[in-house]
Formats: sequence, structure tokens, C-alpha cells
Amino acid sequence: MRTIDWVNGAVEIIDQTALPGELRVLRLHTVGELIAAIQSLAVRGAPALGVAGAFGVALAARVHHDDPVALAVAVQKVETARPTAVNLARGAQRAARMLPYGPDAVLAEACVIRDSEIAASQAMAMLGADLVTALCGERPRMLTHCNTGGLCAVTIGTALGVVGELHRRGRLGGVIASETRPLLQGARLTSWELTQWGIGHRVAVDSAGPFLMARGEIDAVILGADRICANGDVINKVGTYSHALGAWRAGIPFVVVAPETTVDLDTPSGDLVEIEDRGAAEVTAFGDAVNPAFDITPHDLVTAIVTDRRVIRLDRGEKP
Amino acid sequence: MRTIDWVNGAVEIIDQTALPGELRVLRLHTVGELIAAIQSLAVRGAPALGVAGAFGVALAARVHHDDPVALAVAVQKVETARPTAVNLARGAQRAARMLPYGPDAVLAEACVIRDSEIAASQAMAMLGADLVTALCGERPRMLTHCNTGGLCAVTIGTALGVVGELHRRGRLGGVIASETRPLLQGARLTSWELTQWGIGHRVAVDSAGPFLMARGEIDAVILGADRICANGDVINKVGTYSHALGAWRAGIPFVVVAPETTVDLDTPSGDLVEIEDRGAAEVTAFGDAVNPAFDITPHDLVTAIVTDRRVIRLDRGEKP
Repeated sequence: MRTIDWVNGAVEIIDQTALPGELRVLRLHTVGELIAAIQSLAVRGAPALGVAGAFGVALAARVHHDDPVALAVAVQKVETARPTAVNLARGAQRAARMLPYGPDAVLAEACVIRDSEIAASQAMAMLGADLVTALCGERPRMLTHCNTGGLCAVTIGTALGVVGELHRRGRLGGVIASETRPLLQGARLTSWELTQWGIGHRVAVDSAGPFLMARGEIDAVILGADRICANGDVINKVGTYSHALGAWRAGIPFVVVAPETTVDLDTPSGDLVEIEDRGAAEVTAFGDAVNPAFDITPHDLVTAIVTDRRVIRLDRGEKP
Repeated sequence: MRTIDWVNGAVEIIDQTALPGELRVLRLHTVGELIAAIQSLAVRGAPALGVAGAFGVALAARVHHDDPVALAVAVQKVETARPTAVNLARGAQRAARMLPYGPDAVLAEACVIRDSEIAASQAMAMLGADLVTALCGERPRMLTHCNTGGLCAVTIGTALGVVGELHRRGRLGGVIASETRPLLQGARLTSWELTQWGIGHRVAVDSAGPFLMARGEIDAVILGADRICANGDVINKVGTYSHALGAWRAGIPFVVVAPETTVDLDTPSGDLVEIEDRGAAEVTAFGDAVNPAFDITPHDLVTAIVTDRRVIRLDRGEKP
């Protein structure tokens, strides 16, 4: 089952706000519906957002094919629906390059982007599993954060795809899913996917991660990225930086898995990336809040970045 | 209003599981009711648990004054109702020393313990506010974790008492309350108390703390302790260690505020303390979990410990 796809003239997504209680598929017929789905996190995760961006432009091309101004506005709205993951704007821009050739060409390009993300997930799972086994030996106990499974991509995923591949190889010692407040992508989505895959696991509150590492219960941290900067700084779901500090202090590997489409060589370092603040209502019903949806993990805390094409050993001075 | 007190022959507590929705007072007439209140966290926080332990023995002494075996069993149950905070067993043991002199002597001793905690809170607020101003200058922006206000003690509290005193002096630049999963003592209790005190504040998910420090939005971290070991290791609510790592990396002070009754020179270091695991149900409705209620912050990450009698500058090599 695909997280996002083009089916009979509309975009179909698994509604991630309804999981794990209900596996509901939404059909999105308009750019407005797609943007609302992106902003409510019904579809989320950097690779899936890249595909969503491309399909969004395909929707716009069909509706506005005889109105260039409306089309440009719609494309712009898709690109900027959320600011942090580089994949969204990139997917939209790549599909938009086909606009002069008509709606069918745009859709064909969007489907190529979708298929490329599927292939990238498969490649990352293999490269990542090889790396983790090389770094940690047999049956490491892993901690992961947020959701990086099939639900963040089209199928398979990024970091959780590596966990799944280790399990398939009989080389997984255990998994802890960090719950990922405020929207609980770990407790809701990662736990659901691991259950679907038949992988036993435990959930922990986010702030327990570094302590479990200090207590010797975790052999490696593996997670995804929304943007990887030229210097190796990693932008990812808030809580990533805390886990990186914990891994550094515990002396265990901290591995980031993300497709090449997430590598942004145009951004020199993490402090230049706009970090989305999603407002108080997600955090508390009782008052004001500060709610950065992402954080910045400095490159010196990252052991390695695995993409669909390469392993970048930051711990050996390599750069994206 | 006192968080815990002896009123007309019974223990009265503010039911902290009902806040912030409802300010409900529970009257506890038996040891069993008191232990249930401790285990459900209706009463919580190291200083309050010390008083609860003493009042628990006072209840036991009234009920079982003519049955030494039943009395000993009841006292033992109070002492061990929760394992991590040293204050609970200490408060119970101190009151139990008066058992040979009868129920009234036990109750009188428990009331002395209660009054001592009130005095200790007042002293910590002064010493802590002086220290924070010395370390950070005028109007620092503070981050605190869990609840360390009047609700964790009898009145005033520990770390939040310092925040309140800084506010009273016009020397507080801002407060962020870390929500404190899984039971949200920060979002529910600290936010409620700060609102009662008229102190503007924001709530943040726990894992945002270190990132907000890295982004320059926090000048100092201030929080409490459930046990302070002889080497200066601090046992406190899970998430404390993450904030300590964040403060260390950001180069800002990490200040622990706790009464002398929390200092446990009989325990050499943090790895020797039993860390309560409170089970999966608090964390997730969807599967298994690992749920350490506390963590261990190594002494080298702690700038200073403020008690009711002294300031221990761990950053200068001082020890408890």
C-alpha cells in the first residue's frame, strides 16, 4: 500500500491524522485540498512531501491549464505550504518545469518523482542496514524518532526502512520508538508500522531517550531528516537534537537516513533554515506555548548520513 | 493554601491528578488511602512526599496504636510506596522514631516536618534567586521542568519558588515550562501555578528544551531533585538529563534546587538509585513501552545545587 499515489485523476493519501485508530484513504481533487492535507499533517515526511508537491502541481496544471496567472499562484501555494522540508518545494519545482508541455507531461513527471522515491527507499534500506551492522555488529538495539517508515515516503521509508531491513536479515536486536510530541508520530505511526511489519518494539517518551542511552539500553540512534545542509547540519523533527546529544555522551552512533532529494547544498548551515512554529494549540490547552516543529542537529554530533546513493561519514570528516 | 496538611484528624491534599481542570481537596483517613494517593501522584514531589510519609506514620499510629505488628507493616508500606525520592522514607522514618511516645507525639513530629519544609522553601527561594542573579545578571529567561512549585512541597516549592522570588524582585526575564511527559506536570501543574502567581510563561514539549537553549532563547535551566547523591549526581524527573546536556552544550547554567532532606550522602552515586518504571499505560494506549519516571544527571553537568542551607558550586569542585 502506498502512502501517496495518483489514482483515477486524483491524489490518494493515507490520512495520517486518523492512524492508528483508523486506516482511512483521502482522495484530494484540488490544490486547496492537497495543501490542507499537507498543513494538517495528513500527509507528512520529507520524501512524501516531495511527491505531494509534484502531484500538487499536476492537480494545478489540470485545473488552471488555460489561466497562467492562477496556475502560477497555485504552484507557489503548493511550494510554500510548509517551510522546512526542502523536498516539498523541490518536488513542486521539478514538476513545474514540465508545465510548458501540458498537464499530462506534468503528471508523468510527478509519477517519475514518486517512483524515484520508492527506488530511493529501497536503496537506503540496503545501504543503511550494511552501515549499521558495520558500526554496531550483530543485533543492535536501535532508537528511532518521529516516523520514517512507509508513511513518510511512498513505501518502505528512510530510517525505519533500515530497521525493517535489519529485521529481515535477522540482525535487529530491538527497537524503541520515541513518541515524538506533540503529534506523537512515533507512538502513533511508527508503532503502527512496526506492528504491521511484525517487529516487536517499545515506545518511550522523548526525554527518556538520552537516559536510556546512558543506561546502556541503546546501541545506535537512527532517524530521518527534513533537510541536510551543505556542512552536514541536520534539520529534523524536534527532539532529534536531544537524541544526538544523548548519543554523543553515550558514545553510540547517530545515523541519519534521507534521500538525496533532502540534501540541500544551497543552504550552507542549519541556522539559515526557517524552523516552522506550529502554534500553541498542538502543545497545550491551558495557555501559551513555543512549538518549534523541527530542530537543528550540528554536524559534529552526526556519525553518518545514509542517502540512496552514498554513505557520508561525517565522523571521518566527509561532507554532503 | 497548602498542598498537604493535617486538618481535623485527617490528611488533606490538593488532588494533583485533577489540576488544572479542578482544584479538588482530598481527605485521607487511612494509610491505604494515603498510599493510593502517593502512587497515583495525587500527591507528588520530593518535599511533599517527605511530609506525606510523616503524616502516613501519624495515621498508622492512630489506627494501630495497640497492634505493634500491624503498625510496623503500615509504616513499612508508607516508606516504600514509591522508591526513588529519598524524602518519603526519610519523612516516615523520622516520624516513626516518635512511635514509642504515642500517636500525638508522632503527629507533632510530622507537623514539625511540614513546618520545616515550609521554612526550607522560603530559604531556597532567597538563596536561589541570589544565585541566579549572580550567574545570569538581570532578567534571565529560565527553563524549568516538571513541577517544583508549591504543589511539590507544602507551599512555595523549590526551583519554581526561585522563579517566583525572581519575579517578585522584578528580575525575571521569562519562563518556559517543559511539559513533562508522560503525566504533564509542567503543562498542567507548573503552568497552573505560574498563572495563579501572575507570571506570564510558555509551555514547550520536553524535547524542544535543548534546541531552545541552542537557539539562544534560554539563559538558565532551573529544576528540582528527587535525590541528590554524595558525588553530586542528581536524580530527578525523566527529561532532566536531556536538559542538562542541552545546557552544557549551550554553555548556560544548570541549577538544581532541593532541600537538605533530598541530599542523600548514603548513596555514593546515581547509578545506585532504583529508578521507578511506571509501566506502559501512562505512555501509550497502543502497545508496549519503557517508562522510567526519573533519570540520572551526572554531577559534571550540574552548575550548582541550592538547598535551604547552602549553595553547592559543583562547577567549582564543591560536593554535597
